[in-house]
Amino acid sequence: MTYCLGILLPVGLVMASDSRSSAGVDQIASVRKMAQFSVPGDRVITILSAGNLATTQAVVTRLRQSAGAGFQGQDINLAPSMFDVAEMVANRLRDVMAHDASHVQPYGDPTGSFLVGGQIGREAPRLFQIYSAGNFIEADDRSCFLQIGETKYGKPILDRALKLHTPMEEAAKLALLSFDATIRSNLSVDAPIDLWVYRSGALQGENCLSLERSDPYWTDLRARYAQGLATLVESLPAPPLC
Amino acid sequence: MTYCLGILLPVGLVMASDSRSSAGVDQIASVRKMAQFSVPGDRVITILSAGNLATTQAVVTRLRQSAGAGFQGQDINLAPSMFDVAEMVANRLRDVMAHDASHVQPYGDPTGSFLVGGQIGREAPRLFQIYSAGNFIEADDRSCFLQIGETKYGKPILDRALKLHTPMEEAAKLALLSFDATIRSNLSVDAPIDLWVYRSGALQGENCLSLERSDPYWTDLRARYAQGLATLVESLPAPPLC
Repeated sequence: MTYCLGILLPVGLVMASDSRSSAGVDQIASVRKMAQFSVPGDRVITILSAGNLATTQAVVTRLRQSAGAGFQGQDINLAPSMFDVAEMVANRLRDVMAHDASHVQPYGDPTGSFLVGGQIGREAPRLFQIYSAGNFIEADDRSCFLQIGETKYGKPILDRALKLHTPMEEAAKLALLSFDATIRSNLSVDAPIDLWVYRSGALQGENCLSLERSDPYWTDLRARYAQGLATLVESLPAPPLC
Repeated sequence: MTYCLGILLPVGLVMASDSRSSAGVDQIASVRKMAQFSVPGDRVITILSAGNLATTQAVVTRLRQSAGAGFQGQDINLAPSMFDVAEMVANRLRDVMAHDASHVQPYGDPTGSFLVGGQIGREAPRLFQIYSAGNFIEADDRSCFLQIGETKYGKPILDRALKLHTPMEEAAKLALLSFDATIRSNLSVDAPIDLWVYRSGALQGENCLSLERSDPYWTDLRARYAQGLATLVESLPAPPLC
């Protein structure tokens, strides 16, 4: 399984993915599910992947191979808007599915899905979720986060605490706590966690972070949050039982 | 959908259920999913239901009708242990499924599942989860809570904060916060919430609470928790981005 999260705020984007690939007992592998495409000063695009790894890697590799090749509609560096990038990812997904799905189906689910976020030129940052079918939706000020993969465990903390005007650093912490909730409750999602924090207008791909399971910041964050939560629950009034 | 939770601790049991029945747009109904059977001084048993309402109501009604009738194996008041009660619930479920399943299947899922908790005589309190198939598992000191229905949203707070030696009142608050998380993130679960807090050895059914959506304790708890969580997240160190 997988957990990927994208947050779109007026101040920018937060995107994060886990690294667990097959979570069977014998076959555990760690893969990077975050891919970045950038032309500094012009565009920066991050794609997060969930689902069949062969499918999603094929999609990202095709995009990578065509980047800079100069073919309109296939070259992510020429896409005039993030909407066009989302459409390009969706089209590559449909290509891969047309090529592979019938061969893969006897062995398992061939589908994949994506979160695509970034900024191109003067357009504000945008965030899309591409479904397995190749259709897609866009985040807006009323739905400012999108998730793919194992989404439920990590949703409550975002529903509670994430607001449209949450500052960037708070949003990044909430993203990591959403991953912590998912990892604690589900064996099929695990570190390293890749995090990208993008401030509107930067148009470059800095502010990344990969957190290993034993990373001191990550373990400290988890411990402080667990302790703080226990103290908070203790401070709440007891139910008025009768 | 539904969310039901049972917590088994050395100090006793906490059981809770929501009340949302059909969560379609036009047809929203509120039903009680918590049923209690008690013979004060001898036994107290609480059953929480999820799944097809006709199925689960038929099971509970058959148990209710047989209670006190004096037939061994069918009379919940004669069951020598909570294990026997769990088996009785499972058997009634299989009876109802044998009677109804093939008729219901063309229209929807006929299955149901249950949490069964309580105490009989000198036995310690016990907690069981009965699956749709009529088999069941029991909570123990390493798995001290069981959930049925829409379980994922409410799991992280329990995984984080609930320990075997959590005091009763803290466990009750955590149960309610688990319901709050589920209700905030999912439209198909809603108040009133029925809560039962049982202290080992009491052998009676007091300490119940039904919380309506506008209940002052419930709204205060939610507001304090949301506020406390925001303060907690603010106090955590920011990620060391590079």
